[in-house]
Amino acid sequence: MQKPSIPRGTRDFGPEQMVRRNYIFDTIKAVYQKYGFSQLETPTMENLSVLTGKYGDEGDQLLFKVLNSGDFLSKTEATDYESGSKNLLPKISEKGLRYDLTVPFARYVVMHRNDISFPFKRFQIQPVWRADRPQKGRYREFYQCDADVVGTDSLLCEAEIIMMINEVFDKLGLKNFTIKFNNRKVLSAITEVIGAPGKETEFCVAIDKLDKIGKDKVIEELVERGFSSENLSQLDPIFATNQSIDDNLNFLKGFFAANETGQKGIQEIEEILTYLKGYSIDNPHLELDLTLARGLSYYTGSIFEVKANDVKIGSICGGGRYDNLTGVFGLKDVSGVGISFGVDRIYDVLEELNLYPESHASSLQAMIVNFGNESMMAGIKVMQALRLEGINAELYPDNAKMKKQMSYANNKAVPFVIVIGEDEIKTETYSLKNMASGEQESLKLEEVISKIKNSH
Amino acid sequence: MQKPSIPRGTRDFGPEQMVRRNYIFDTIKAVYQKYGFSQLETPTMENLSVLTGKYGDEGDQLLFKVLNSGDFLSKTEATDYESGSKNLLPKISEKGLRYDLTVPFARYVVMHRNDISFPFKRFQIQPVWRADRPQKGRYREFYQCDADVVGTDSLLCEAEIIMMINEVFDKLGLKNFTIKFNNRKVLSAITEVIGAPGKETEFCVAIDKLDKIGKDKVIEELVERGFSSENLSQLDPIFATNQSIDDNLNFLKGFFAANETGQKGIQEIEEILTYLKGYSIDNPHLELDLTLARGLSYYTGSIFEVKANDVKIGSICGGGRYDNLTGVFGLKDVSGVGISFGVDRIYDVLEELNLYPESHASSLQAMIVNFGNESMMAGIKVMQALRLEGINAELYPDNAKMKKQMSYANNKAVPFVIVIGEDEIKTETYSLKNMASGEQESLKLEEVISKIKNSH
Repeated sequence: MQKPSIPRGTRDFGPEQMVRRNYIFDTIKAVYQKYGFSQLETPTMENLSVLTGKYGDEGDQLLFKVLNSGDFLSKTEATDYESGSKNLLPKISEKGLRYDLTVPFARYVVMHRNDISFPFKRFQIQPVWRADRPQKGRYREFYQCDADVVGTDSLLCEAEIIMMINEVFDKLGLKNFTIKFNNRKVLSAITEVIGAPGKETEFCVAIDKLDKIGKDKVIEELVERGFSSENLSQLDPIFATNQSIDDNLNFLKGFFAANETGQKGIQEIEEILTYLKGYSIDNPHLELDLTLARGLSYYTGSIFEVKANDVKIGSICGGGRYDNLTGVFGLKDVSGVGISFGVDRIYDVLEELNLYPESHASSLQAMIVNFGNESMMAGIKVMQALRLEGINAELYPDNAKMKKQMSYANNKAVPFVIVIGEDEIKTETYSLKNMASGEQESLKLEEVISKIKNSH
Repeated sequence: MQKPSIPRGTRDFGPEQMVRRNYIFDTIKAVYQKYGFSQLETPTMENLSVLTGKYGDEGDQLLFKVLNSGDFLSKTEATDYESGSKNLLPKISEKGLRYDLTVPFARYVVMHRNDISFPFKRFQIQPVWRADRPQKGRYREFYQCDADVVGTDSLLCEAEIIMMINEVFDKLGLKNFTIKFNNRKVLSAITEVIGAPGKETEFCVAIDKLDKIGKDKVIEELVERGFSSENLSQLDPIFATNQSIDDNLNFLKGFFAANETGQKGIQEIEEILTYLKGYSIDNPHLELDLTLARGLSYYTGSIFEVKANDVKIGSICGGGRYDNLTGVFGLKDVSGVGISFGVDRIYDVLEELNLYPESHASSLQAMIVNFGNESMMAGIKVMQALRLEGINAELYPDNAKMKKQMSYANNKAVPFVIVIGEDEIKTETYSLKNMASGEQESLKLEEVISKIKNSH
């Protein structure tokens, strides 16, 4: 007899994990909806013609490909086989699993461009798949939680994203986090000012490693890539930590005195900050980090990244503005800005900081003990009365030993257990046990209901 | 430039569809939770060793198989290629897409049998994939919404399932539906009484076609399969329509006077009905349909099927009891009972009967018109004030033409639009337009908030 297993890098989510995951998903979803985003879902499988070439060579390798159904070899010849996997592939597979939510979103926008009323604000919460080598914290199936606005270049969208990040982490009870932001125009202008125009990508790739390898190694790498070490020394203020937003802006204003791209970058940052003042919130958790680069090459304006300061873990949220999301599918000039919450990391952060609310241990609120026959019929009546009051309740289905029934209630983390004995049927009073305190009371049905309802 | 498309038989769900689909999912989920079921999610990909052989030969054909990643031909030889798709398959593919929620659930139960506190009540709402020929109402990717209890043979579970079905369709506003139920022991006993013991499968397969081909053709098919036409004539009362539950039970009691299996079946039906009385609901929408058979071979006790009586469509919900769910994975004697709601069909039923609530057209409650500059900063303040009161609100991001902004609000089906002109900034009054009635009022901020809050 086979011992069943699941594929490497994939996970089952049991009841307790699901309650916590849903708590995170529901929080993010409620915030997205509050800010006017509408939900989209796209198919798990996309045509390989849509996916291939969108994530670089490495990404193409990491796509999960689905075999054509039926006799998949029927359109092949022996020479196809002999020419190897790469050449055989397009003849036996036309579909792949979704690799991220951005490309399917771009595909959707292009296919529905005549029906969509722009600006289009969509959010999407779905799993994606990558044939990466599984390791701690890296899975082959994981969820992404994206929100994007496309069809407007209004910087109000950037302010809204900063507000959404604040609201999500505030609702999740995370206090000590930092939203780092920057602007690709600033990074681009820096390369111009230090005499390396057009070398923005090399600059971003190197500076993106700052957290991992430190300033000296980054400078070393830049020098190796042909940047002038003398010019790089002008960047010292950029690497300085604990600078206020105003400090950084003052430095940039001097640095970009004669650079138009740089001035445009400053102006965008200042406009976002102006909008943010309109919301009048105490602490937007914002840091203008001039070394923030983000790996993805398609960003063209604002970029964001969020750190949980009390937990050693990568960024828990990230995003930015792009000017040409749908160009690859033939629709030009669709500017947009988006954000993505990393649910798996947020899950770990909340666990490490013990931030899950107690009431989320179970959705079941009361279990009624089953003594069989007459008590069972009385139990059904009580259960139904509780449910009519909106209480999640169940009657244990079998007349099992008390110990077994109580252990079931414990495992399910149900806060209240109700015992209906023979006397209690006669007197219509019920024994209500608070599983956390151990307290036990004899109560009328209305009292049972109000105790359970008021226990949150 | 390629024109992007999605794979045949798959669908994008845009904002309006998502609101309606979520309305159905949320309703079912809330009922499942009210009845003490906990959520489970399993990976999209399962090992083919888990999936293959569980759905019959046809099912194996309909599994979507995922190519091994990397150089998938590396473990193959030319002779494997020459021997055809079927022989090459196991060497290039080890994983497939989930085909239903039942087999992954059985796999989960077996893998976690030492951690699970039985009886285990789980629900699961996830997509499944079948490489079927796509046609109207049949998709290659669709959601299933299952709830199962395993580890108990208590017939209370059957009563609970009938109650859940009632509650789900009641909440969805569907009035005219019928829960047909029957018991496989009754069907099995019928074959014994009419002198065809052991021919239960043939009997069920034939009788399952009653709706499509009618009684005469069913009898014809049974005679062809070796049933005695004389004995079959004893079954006339079974085919009679509009029989009450009591009529049917009375007939069965006579018919099974000397048949033990039949008596057990009657006893199970009566026990379920006794439990149901305990809930004291007006109309359980129940019909004991002695010709209900259901195709799946693994049912061993109660079986259920739900029809929407006002819409021409197949069953919208179905399920039953099985005695050996996990046997195929080496865990014997796990009895259980389950139910599955067909979301795609329920979606169509609600649409045809116009049962979607008006308030579910959009989750956005108010849009603020953007006139740029000063009005924009005032707009941010109003938007933030609304959101702090829990109202889903947005400020149109650009200073676009009024017509464009109003058409955006219309498309998004937002119930209220707020206009903040120059005078209105000074007087701190705002123009609130009710988009349904066209009514427009000049109001203070608190009045705007209470109008929107009380509009449901």
